[in-house]
Amino acid sequence: MSDKKLPKRSENYAEWYQELVKKADLAEHSAVKGCMVIKPYGYTIWENMQRELDRMFKETGHTNAYFPLFVPKSFLEKEEGHAEGFAKECAVVTHYRLKANPDKKGALMVDSESKLEEELIVRPTSEAVIWHTYKNWIQSYRDLPLLINQWANVVRWEMRTRLFLRTTEFLWQEGHTAHATADEAVIETKQMLEVYATFAETFLALPVIKGVKTANERFAGAEDTYCIEALMQDGKALQAGTSHFLGQNFAKAFDVKFVNKQNQQEYVWGTSWGVSTRLMGALVMAHSDDNGLILPPAIAPFQVVIVPIGKTEEQLAKVEKKIIEIQKELRAKNIRFKFDNRDNLTPGFKFADWELRGVPVRLALGERDIDNGTIEVARRDKERGEEGAKTIEKLENIAEFIEKLLAQIQHDIYQKALKYRDEHITEVNSWEEFKDVLQNKGGFVSAHWDGTTETELKIKEETKATIRCIPFETKNEAGKCIFSGKNSQKRVLFAQAY
Amino acid sequence: MSDKKLPKRSENYAEWYQELVKKADLAEHSAVKGCMVIKPYGYTIWENMQRELDRMFKETGHTNAYFPLFVPKSFLEKEEGHAEGFAKECAVVTHYRLKANPDKKGALMVDSESKLEEELIVRPTSEAVIWHTYKNWIQSYRDLPLLINQWANVVRWEMRTRLFLRTTEFLWQEGHTAHATADEAVIETKQMLEVYATFAETFLALPVIKGVKTANERFAGAEDTYCIEALMQDGKALQAGTSHFLGQNFAKAFDVKFVNKQNQQEYVWGTSWGVSTRLMGALVMAHSDDNGLILPPAIAPFQVVIVPIGKTEEQLAKVEKKIIEIQKELRAKNIRFKFDNRDNLTPGFKFADWELRGVPVRLALGERDIDNGTIEVARRDKERGEEGAKTIEKLENIAEFIEKLLAQIQHDIYQKALKYRDEHITEVNSWEEFKDVLQNKGGFVSAHWDGTTETELKIKEETKATIRCIPFETKNEAGKCIFSGKNSQKRVLFAQAY
Repeated sequence: MSDKKLPKRSENYAEWYQELVKKADLAEHSAVKGCMVIKPYGYTIWENMQRELDRMFKETGHTNAYFPLFVPKSFLEKEEGHAEGFAKECAVVTHYRLKANPDKKGALMVDSESKLEEELIVRPTSEAVIWHTYKNWIQSYRDLPLLINQWANVVRWEMRTRLFLRTTEFLWQEGHTAHATADEAVIETKQMLEVYATFAETFLALPVIKGVKTANERFAGAEDTYCIEALMQDGKALQAGTSHFLGQNFAKAFDVKFVNKQNQQEYVWGTSWGVSTRLMGALVMAHSDDNGLILPPAIAPFQVVIVPIGKTEEQLAKVEKKIIEIQKELRAKNIRFKFDNRDNLTPGFKFADWELRGVPVRLALGERDIDNGTIEVARRDKERGEEGAKTIEKLENIAEFIEKLLAQIQHDIYQKALKYRDEHITEVNSWEEFKDVLQNKGGFVSAHWDGTTETELKIKEETKATIRCIPFETKNEAGKCIFSGKNSQKRVLFAQAY
Repeated sequence: MSDKKLPKRSENYAEWYQELVKKADLAEHSAVKGCMVIKPYGYTIWENMQRELDRMFKETGHTNAYFPLFVPKSFLEKEEGHAEGFAKECAVVTHYRLKANPDKKGALMVDSESKLEEELIVRPTSEAVIWHTYKNWIQSYRDLPLLINQWANVVRWEMRTRLFLRTTEFLWQEGHTAHATADEAVIETKQMLEVYATFAETFLALPVIKGVKTANERFAGAEDTYCIEALMQDGKALQAGTSHFLGQNFAKAFDVKFVNKQNQQEYVWGTSWGVSTRLMGALVMAHSDDNGLILPPAIAPFQVVIVPIGKTEEQLAKVEKKIIEIQKELRAKNIRFKFDNRDNLTPGFKFADWELRGVPVRLALGERDIDNGTIEVARRDKERGEEGAKTIEKLENIAEFIEKLLAQIQHDIYQKALKYRDEHITEVNSWEEFKDVLQNKGGFVSAHWDGTTETELKIKEETKATIRCIPFETKNEAGKCIFSGKNSQKRVLFAQAY
């Protein structure tokens, strides 16, 4: 707690992010390369996300289940595109026992006699193991649709990692559904993308663009990948969730057939969809400022912090008594609060501490406030000194005031992010403009593209920008590809991305 | 669903258990040796357990966090007893990449160039990785107590596995706390055992005996292991939860010190405690019968199933209309129900199906019932034909009746298990008696023991019985060890166990 000062976003955004995640006690690097420790404060935010998502999954008819951590190597091989996509980042279990090292007292070594006949992969995703299982669960159209979700850890070996954004192990949910028709599976794929978009916008206050990925950016093994794309404050895009239409690829790879109503055998149609602890990174980068986190009330561990002000024990006792009343009112309205009565810290220190941690509303109460029947209310989402950042409110019915204020803050954080995002979607019509916007403004660049992977890769090579998505909401408009000059029927969204 | 018939408990208890778990859709073996798939119905029970436990952990001041799946081999070595205890059952990650197998099209092989410098162990438990982390989190007495829990998957390589009871991968929660004094740590250890006991008795309807393990049965790395022990219907005991006082063992192994109020450096005192998906096995084996599961209402996925009876579409429409009213009433009382309106199955089939799945209350409603203002109510916990197993109740205020009935069922299931358990605690005073009870009656055997590991192991060798615990509630009573004849001050509980 001694050095809480953050780098400024304008000076070093990457460093600001990294330091903020650590200093606000969200997560830290572990001793295992590429793996993170999610600290209690950060994990509580993840739990709040989980709770809302899980509710939304269940409301749309899904149930949770659990499948093994390990995938036999031969399973991964079965769907060719899938195998190619994940082979290079697999943690491989080869042995199942250690033994005492005879050359070094107290040390352990791998017991070579425990070598596995077939290596096991720590799941990078669970399509292979789940479709192998589905083969036995699905016989008839009456077994469909099968609508299952799993909350789990997955491992993808990464050389360059960043807390939450790219880690070797991460937490996520993965939905895996099976359907009788392609239409039904596509409807499911789109429905879950809508769930993700609603979640991101409603709870994370994160505006997203819905669209479809190009062939080059598709999930390994999918026919189509839908995505939600968000914009961070440094002008880079972040893929916040994906939903895949798998066609019959995994059904064919794992021989999953069903008898339809006409008594004929058919392959099953599949989807999969997921969001991960990466959302934590999106949340931090979308809203926070140089003083610390700014958390939307809907997912903040504490929505309100209460700091008592007083010099003497008598003053503090009087203040504390009043705060107990306020707590009762807040509890009755299901407002999550923290009473910071740490006796070894000054109010100023506490203010900075909770500012760093992004608590949406701070209440400060002293003896004089009580005498005046008032309380000091500070909003984390406003800048220090900005109008409305700090106000004096009546103590009477304070919980009702705060309830409304929290809703207002949730709304304002979203609107601010939306305004920034909309100001950073730039239509360009030439290669020069395209490069200029990427270099000097950032954000999404809406441009014509000739539809080829070749052009897509060349643009990436020259500018590091990728096609984030072909947005659902795009009007048909004839134009010329900004790179090749060939004909194009609609604009797509480019951006540099996390 | 074609062959739902179970083996009888009296004929083959092990087979009955195994088949029941599979046929009731709780879990099944996966393609990965020793790992299970927890199916949606089984997972919902686990979620219900998690929700209650998580609430109880938070009410006692704990927060959740997440630590890495992988433990570097050198970490495991640091606490000697711990290393010895787990070395022989470790899944070991040695490589981080696959590549195309040049000799076989489409096949993958381990890329030998991706060999890790230090092998990683898939966590069998997280003391090592957590205490390594705690070193940086704890400096002063103000950082204590540190009260953290983790919900996670763990892997312990098992040669002989049984669904839920012993699997290579299982799900659990592991609490890891750090304290300034030994006293505080012991109080925490005992508090969490109480939480487990309350949970088992209140929600699982599972009576447990609280006690302390002998040195030989202690957790690898602990100073003391407290446990709750339950009794299954075949007379075998099952350890349902453990809470460990770690002393300063892990603090010393990982050099975790704090500055106390007197400004002196001291090693921290630790605890750890856990329950796992093994509880699912205990739940099944404690209550169920030859017709299927018997689930306590408190954790049943569905507390009530409603089966419509009718031959014509007109009859069914009338019945369904009434059932919609009943559903509203049940929902208002937060009763979890399922309306089984599958149109391709007979009521008789549905009755057997839900009996197998252990739904506590079954409602059946036909046209004549509606005309009479009545409904048929069946209790799953009573035997078929037993008084009160099936009754006709008034339709008016049926939800209120069911609410009370569910509480009664929860109570009765517990009492039945308690009666069986209490009838199967047998005091013996000779070696002959001891063997006779184990062979012909089963259950817990309360006997004097001389306190040595030597005797404990010999008894185990001859009878397969282990000391389940030294119960907290034991009066001091002088006696002679049933095996060695040496003096003893109190009885301990022996049993054959899962």
